[in-house]
Amino acid sequence: MTQNRQRVTIAVDAMGGDYAPHEIVKGSIQATRDIGGEKIEIVLVGVENEIHKEMAKYDTTGLPIRVENADEVIRDGESPVLALRQKNNASILQAMQLVKEGEVDAVVSMGSTGTVLVSAIQVLGTLAGIKRPSVGAILNGLAPNTVIFDLGTNVDCKPRDLLNFATIGCIVARKIMHIEKPSVAILSNGAEEGKGNKLAKDTYSLFKGNSFNFIGNVEGNDIPTGKANVIVCDGFVGNVLVKYSEGLGDVLIGKVGKYLEGKLSQEQVDNICSNLYAMTHVADMNGGGMIYGVDGLVWIGHGRSKASQLVESIQQVKHAVNANVAQEIKIELGRLQNQNNT
Amino acid sequence: MTQNRQRVTIAVDAMGGDYAPHEIVKGSIQATRDIGGEKIEIVLVGVENEIHKEMAKYDTTGLPIRVENADEVIRDGESPVLALRQKNNASILQAMQLVKEGEVDAVVSMGSTGTVLVSAIQVLGTLAGIKRPSVGAILNGLAPNTVIFDLGTNVDCKPRDLLNFATIGCIVARKIMHIEKPSVAILSNGAEEGKGNKLAKDTYSLFKGNSFNFIGNVEGNDIPTGKANVIVCDGFVGNVLVKYSEGLGDVLIGKVGKYLEGKLSQEQVDNICSNLYAMTHVADMNGGGMIYGVDGLVWIGHGRSKASQLVESIQQVKHAVNANVAQEIKIELGRLQNQNNT
Repeated sequence: MTQNRQRVTIAVDAMGGDYAPHEIVKGSIQATRDIGGEKIEIVLVGVENEIHKEMAKYDTTGLPIRVENADEVIRDGESPVLALRQKNNASILQAMQLVKEGEVDAVVSMGSTGTVLVSAIQVLGTLAGIKRPSVGAILNGLAPNTVIFDLGTNVDCKPRDLLNFATIGCIVARKIMHIEKPSVAILSNGAEEGKGNKLAKDTYSLFKGNSFNFIGNVEGNDIPTGKANVIVCDGFVGNVLVKYSEGLGDVLIGKVGKYLEGKLSQEQVDNICSNLYAMTHVADMNGGGMIYGVDGLVWIGHGRSKASQLVESIQQVKHAVNANVAQEIKIELGRLQNQNNT
Repeated sequence: MTQNRQRVTIAVDAMGGDYAPHEIVKGSIQATRDIGGEKIEIVLVGVENEIHKEMAKYDTTGLPIRVENADEVIRDGESPVLALRQKNNASILQAMQLVKEGEVDAVVSMGSTGTVLVSAIQVLGTLAGIKRPSVGAILNGLAPNTVIFDLGTNVDCKPRDLLNFATIGCIVARKIMHIEKPSVAILSNGAEEGKGNKLAKDTYSLFKGNSFNFIGNVEGNDIPTGKANVIVCDGFVGNVLVKYSEGLGDVLIGKVGKYLEGKLSQEQVDNICSNLYAMTHVADMNGGGMIYGVDGLVWIGHGRSKASQLVESIQQVKHAVNANVAQEIKIELGRLQNQNNT
């Protein structure tokens, strides 16, 4: 697959994020320099004159960057649905449109999650059997061979939703994490079959008939040890878990940092605190995440991303494009839907 | 209330726990010495000659300890329901019977959670509106002014169950934690009203009409900071959360301990690791917990408890008896049930 691709083209929403457009333009320029112009091309989507003003600060001669004008901007705090209805020429909508028309391979935005999600659904559409796109995370910094779905976009899930998460998770594990035969588990409140709430129990029955490597239930304490490669749960649980972890991490870092002050060098204290951060801020360590379940590749980065995080995000997206992740997910979900209908 | 009580009498299941009966007998003797015989009396329930053999190792002259024979023992790993049906004279059943007959004020057992729960339901019965007793935890070591319900005995909850948890939680916060007007929150995946899964949203509506100090939703990251005194959630979520926290703590302690080795004194390393333990093993820090929702005061301690943990448990139970917790919960749940029926 990789061999067939000449160059990955990525649309970057120049107007999305706390530091847009300056850090977004800066990061895009940096990415084309770092990755190399023969491998990547970037389309900056947004208010043309603002982007050009930023670009003028750098020497961009020969860099594979072009600008697509989109003269409306959706600000933080606007209602996504309302804003997208009123602003047809918003940068995020135009960027999605480029994916839909096959002009680019993927979109990267540091805009608000709600706006990116809604515009992806609106322009690209959801895949077979998907009600809402899903956000998952590879637990880098804690259990790097584990990905957990869903982290909050889907609540009140049915077993069929968890089957979608498992399907997507397996492709992510194979294609991105390079795990040949990923193990899949259901997060539950007991390890044995028959333990769990209604959703976990019904999902257990459904998973038993499937072809992936289902290893049963895992409990909360099995997450940090990476007992399974793909862990599925209702997005309500995933969201509470990830946020609890972050809050706990912040409290721990504060207390440990204070305790160690004066006992170790500042560098050593910083080192230990950033380790604690990495292990507790599980969803944060990727600088953002892909939304899965729409017909195209879309990356939502953290709003507070600066140039270097954008470069990191672009690299991850390029990797996903080369690995053909979006196409594989579309095929697999289509196959599931057909099985379901017959 | 406290003035009215002459002496608190507690039945201790002498046969329950990994170190029964020797550590249980030892701890009971120690508790009467520590607390003082005018304030406490202990009834050791179990196989008489085994208990007396253990007691003979100590000078128990004048100590307020008596023995009630119960010649059957339920071993770890037995099915609670089956074992309790076959062993009518099991120590845990006899101990519950003493509560029911008003001969003692409370039961303490280090036996298996399942067995203690089932025997409490069987002998004491559940209170008005309660389907299954609830287990909660005061987050000592992390957020000591916060109690969280339910931690796993109730899954697939209805809003009414969460109302019971809130009611019980408020009494625990007032009577045990001495918080005059405890704040109550629903654990959700968003702070605003209207955010949440179906259970959280429906519970929000139900709580708005109630007289307690309802402050709305809290998110996972608000737990470690103690944003509310009483946090309610489905037991599935509570269980996953508490176990995740423990697993995460173990991983963190391992990594931090290793990193600090040789950089700090062993005492300093141990100190920091036990702090990390206390902050992540949130349910563990109380040495066990009360089961709420049965008609009587019942404490389940950790199976691995030794004499000193038993003393600690007995002290907490004595405190709960003096504070009239069981009686208050019975009255409040009865009142709720009446409101519900009218």
